[in-house]
Amino acid sequence: MNLSQMTKDQIVSFKSENEKLYNDFKGQGLCLNMARGNPCKEQLELSVDMLGVFDDGNFMSSCGTDVRNYGIVDGIPEAKKFFSDMIGVGTEEIIIFGNSSLNAMFFAVQCAFNKGILGSKPWSQCEKRKFLCPVPGYDRHFKVTEFFGFEMINIPMTPSGPDMDMIEELVKDEDVKGIWCVPQYSNPDGISYSDETVKRFAALKPAAKDFRIFWDNAYCIHHLTDDPHCILNILDEAKKLGNEDIVYVFGSTSKVTFPGAGVAVMGASVANVEELRKYLGISIIGYDKMNQFRHVKFFGTIENMKEHMKKHKEIIAPKFRLVCDVLNKEIAPLGIGEWTDPEGGYFISFNAPAGCAKRIVQLCKDAGVTLTGAGATFPHGVDPEDKNIRIAPTYPPIEDLAKAMELFVICVKIAAAEKLLGE
Amino acid sequence: MNLSQMTKDQIVSFKSENEKLYNDFKGQGLCLNMARGNPCKEQLELSVDMLGVFDDGNFMSSCGTDVRNYGIVDGIPEAKKFFSDMIGVGTEEIIIFGNSSLNAMFFAVQCAFNKGILGSKPWSQCEKRKFLCPVPGYDRHFKVTEFFGFEMINIPMTPSGPDMDMIEELVKDEDVKGIWCVPQYSNPDGISYSDETVKRFAALKPAAKDFRIFWDNAYCIHHLTDDPHCILNILDEAKKLGNEDIVYVFGSTSKVTFPGAGVAVMGASVANVEELRKYLGISIIGYDKMNQFRHVKFFGTIENMKEHMKKHKEIIAPKFRLVCDVLNKEIAPLGIGEWTDPEGGYFISFNAPAGCAKRIVQLCKDAGVTLTGAGATFPHGVDPEDKNIRIAPTYPPIEDLAKAMELFVICVKIAAAEKLLGE
Repeated sequence: MNLSQMTKDQIVSFKSENEKLYNDFKGQGLCLNMARGNPCKEQLELSVDMLGVFDDGNFMSSCGTDVRNYGIVDGIPEAKKFFSDMIGVGTEEIIIFGNSSLNAMFFAVQCAFNKGILGSKPWSQCEKRKFLCPVPGYDRHFKVTEFFGFEMINIPMTPSGPDMDMIEELVKDEDVKGIWCVPQYSNPDGISYSDETVKRFAALKPAAKDFRIFWDNAYCIHHLTDDPHCILNILDEAKKLGNEDIVYVFGSTSKVTFPGAGVAVMGASVANVEELRKYLGISIIGYDKMNQFRHVKFFGTIENMKEHMKKHKEIIAPKFRLVCDVLNKEIAPLGIGEWTDPEGGYFISFNAPAGCAKRIVQLCKDAGVTLTGAGATFPHGVDPEDKNIRIAPTYPPIEDLAKAMELFVICVKIAAAEKLLGE
Repeated sequence: MNLSQMTKDQIVSFKSENEKLYNDFKGQGLCLNMARGNPCKEQLELSVDMLGVFDDGNFMSSCGTDVRNYGIVDGIPEAKKFFSDMIGVGTEEIIIFGNSSLNAMFFAVQCAFNKGILGSKPWSQCEKRKFLCPVPGYDRHFKVTEFFGFEMINIPMTPSGPDMDMIEELVKDEDVKGIWCVPQYSNPDGISYSDETVKRFAALKPAAKDFRIFWDNAYCIHHLTDDPHCILNILDEAKKLGNEDIVYVFGSTSKVTFPGAGVAVMGASVANVEELRKYLGISIIGYDKMNQFRHVKFFGTIENMKEHMKKHKEIIAPKFRLVCDVLNKEIAPLGIGEWTDPEGGYFISFNAPAGCAKRIVQLCKDAGVTLTGAGATFPHGVDPEDKNIRIAPTYPPIEDLAKAMELFVICVKIAAAEKLLGE
């Protein structure tokens, strides 16, 4: 029965039952962390053989550089070839960074902020600066633009991507300098941008010449089904329109090999890459080329990497299934929440009744299950409706996940009941 | 015979003889690169066993984090313990970065520039900003402060360190925000700062509260003799005076294990570290913890690392010897150059007659030996006297080095003769 159709007495009794269950849980002394989209131990084991690839004693890149030594600020040729296939750009359109795509994004924003882009005034010298933030989105993106003092403008997500009408209107403002996008299996909604959305992005003509789309294709090969999403290649689309400077594409192997020791890359037009490479050479002599070579030697081809991703899917898809099954069984009949059933990526996005998200996360925490903080998916950590919760099911063993979800639905029920009772 | 005491005819004939030798060299089609302080292949081989340390299957840091996964922005506890011993700070006074100390320095400058230090106004908002640059010094340092638009002020080096009288005077200017230092076996002079110099640095009371000493202790364990230099610990000295916020200490294993895949660290007061850690968490989720653990597992103790450095010394000390022997034999009697005979570090600093450095480097290049660009050891690449050349003897095999030095002294002779002849 839908909770909103219950009488007050029914709700009181419903809440009381769930509070009893909750207190039982509290007594169990749980300690589970579902805060971040961390791969689990079994996933990490998939790449351990990568650590032995130098047993052949070959440390020489095809360009004649020993990968152990200094040099090559933008990546060894093998890595450029391999990763340009992964993110769909040319070998002249890529920079290989260190282990963190977030760090690459931070660097790109920092360069624009302090030096400007292709001759434009540095963002730091603009009186106002604004950044577009599709919400819910990735908290780490928002923290970067917060660091650099941007006013962040929430853009609602639709099933085909961010609201493009709104974006096309907003970029008429020269103060608007960029947008954060996770275009495939978006974080946290799991939405893949439609062809039309990608084309409209590629065709954007912002007032600011130095407007950049930060296209964080973090989950480009991270499928959860046998029917993978495949979004349009934005750099190709932009090129067709002579608009190729508008986008910075990012990707990494953080959730392919090791989150702590993967390889991050950035793709962009030759003009963008040349400028950033120049600045990069001031900030570092070169990233870890051994790790670049390690990855290329381990996978060999992009096809092998895609096969490798199927092993990840085998491990984590059942966890996503479990979460959705529990929500379908326990929450759907009550009408006190909506959620995604993603076909890729790392998250399930749960929308509680308005005003309940913080309370649910707190209840879970008090009983030993840490979720991503409510509000984290919005700029400044402020969810205007206080309803979005990002569920990250990959890390815990499935038994723990089942336990955590049992608790989660109890907390949703209590919070929804409290809300209806006006508590 | 000293060249300056020769008659014009003698000089003409001297020059002509050397030009003949030079042209013979040109015919040999040499191709040697001595531009950077790169370790040689034998040095790289010393650390190859490090790649096998995970064969034990142990990826768990003592803090319970799997080093393969996300997390721990400032370094695993094992790495903090190990590297705090290396640079002489406490485990609460260290941040473990990625593979590049230059990148750590860039980050620290960037934070001060964009956010300020401990409550001070961001450097970007200061109308003027100046940085002190002991010369000759490290080109990569100067490029960082050039990137951020600093006026760079040359500080002469003395045998005991930079000219402290001049520094103490200059820091009375609030626009002066920092200084670059390589305090032990300085780049390129190989000078280790005297106790008095370190104490005067530690006691500096600059007008700018956000003045920072960038103490790049790149060669802290990089000895070339059995009688290692040991400079005073600046953070300890500064603490005695309640002045501990004044210094950022940097170090790395770039020339201990692998230049391309080492570990870089920064030490500073708890207040400095806490602020930088906060900013770091915005720019990255965490650096490569596997590589941190790899280093700690490989060495175990700082004593073992110091033993390891003796193997480096065995390989490279003869190369330094060779360079100095050639210079002593070929250049000393002519009085057309001065140079250092360093007891550690990576460079020999050669001072040609004024106005000759560029010409010498060009002559070498035209005959197939690439040296560090003349002027590189000065801000903006401008050596006001055009005399300093940084010789980096570690990389080439010793036969090649001998060949290169044979050419080098010929080029010095030609350039010096041209100079005396007023050509």
